[in-house]
Amino acid sequence: MSLINDRLKQLNIVLPPAPAPAANYVPYVKSNKLIFVSGQIPMLNGELVTGKIGTNIEIEDAKTAARLCGLAIVSQLNEATDLDLDKIKRIVKLGGFVNCIDEFTQQPEIINGASDLMVEVFGDKGKHSRFAVGTNSLPRNVVVEIEAVAEIH
Amino acid sequence: MSLINDRLKQLNIVLPPAPAPAANYVPYVKSNKLIFVSGQIPMLNGELVTGKIGTNIEIEDAKTAARLCGLAIVSQLNEATDLDLDKIKRIVKLGGFVNCIDEFTQQPEIINGASDLMVEVFGDKGKHSRFAVGTNSLPRNVVVEIEAVAEIH
Amino acid sequence: MSLINDRLKQLNIVLPPAPAPAANYVPYVKSNKLIFVSGQIPMLNGELVTGKIGTNIEIEDAKTAARLCGLAIVSQLNEATDLDLDKIKRIVKLGGFVNCIDEFTQQPEIINGASDLMVEVFGDKGKHSRFAVGTNSLPRNVVVEIEAVAEIH
Repeated sequence: MSLINDRLKQLNIVLPPAPAPAANYVPYVKSNKLIFVSGQIPMLNGELVTGKIGTNIEIEDAKTAARLCGLAIVSQLNEATDLDLDKIKRIVKLGGFVNCIDEFTQQPEIINGASDLMVEVFGDKGKHSRFAVGTNSLPRNVVVEIEAVAEIH
Repeated sequence: MSLINDRLKQLNIVLPPAPAPAANYVPYVKSNKLIFVSGQIPMLNGELVTGKIGTNIEIEDAKTAARLCGLAIVSQLNEATDLDLDKIKRIVKLGGFVNCIDEFTQQPEIINGASDLMVEVFGDKGKHSRFAVGTNSLPRNVVVEIEAVAEIH
Repeated sequence: MSLINDRLKQLNIVLPPAPAPAANYVPYVKSNKLIFVSGQIPMLNGELVTGKIGTNIEIEDAKTAARLCGLAIVSQLNEATDLDLDKIKRIVKLGGFVNCIDEFTQQPEIINGASDLMVEVFGDKGKHSRFAVGTNSLPRNVVVEIEAVAEIH
């Protein structure tokens, strides 16, 4: 019985399938008590959420995309903990990249979509350090990419 | 009596207040012997140092901004060590993002503003690994953002 | 006798000299069981590999540059392990930045140049977590910069 996995049900949060990269890298690596999670990209109903803020995607949709990246991170952590998220002691770090035009400067508001999810799911253990920066281009033109580090008990 | 905090006084370095993020993330997370510090931005007399190199800010001013990011990192580490920076065993890593036009290629010179500060404050323990890259946009249009990892005894 | 260093010979892989930064940062820092490697840039016969994808360098050449960054990372790890790469337990993470125009979206294919090398050299121990993102500018106009984290036994 996992308290966090139960909470996911109560919150009606269904984790997406944990995406498996098709290359010589892997979705996560455990190193002692740390889990390093690869940069996750936003998927909704099997489709990537693409766009560059300031050109063809709204702030609210980009923030939702960041939440989807967060869901993918939780999904990877669920795999890494053999489906028992109670083993997560702390979300240590998020590193967020936002696909945007040069004039866009609200990257923190976008990445909050993922930060808020972490606290929604993990409570105080979900509070993390982070960076949030802009970039002129992301893989497959996704609007957000977020990497993570977590600590296990 | 903290040797490093004493040295700060001798160097006439006054740490800025450690900024507290207003969201579901925190300025730093301790994980075993590591402290992960959130991306710090440059503040001077309560004002953000903004600009994009190549457009409206000079290289020297951007390097000073990187030093201010470094001061904010030291300030967070000071909080994380209960105001005793002697507990810092090593600055492990800096990750530096520089807000610049496409043609600007001297990011290392900018981030040296923070790297030099680390060695000024911590001596050999301040020598760190790092990356220094460009970006087309940063939060609030600040000119530099720097994350850090440090190890404690 | 180091198995991995022997394999390098069998693969005809000659490690480049481990570049030493000329500033207050260092090529790598060991922290307990982790080695944090500074962002490495591509060098070939003593010359930097420069260019921005979409403007003046082809995808295959950029992928080769990423492999050169990977070689520099292995070279730093070789130094960090006193020339015995068998001490490497796992490549934990690569962080890849690709110098490209806004419209380029195949950053993963570029960074695969480094990811493939890690598995070529270290086998399953070379499989790592990673991020791959675009950037509008890199130091000295290099086409790729890659940082790394590895774990030792």
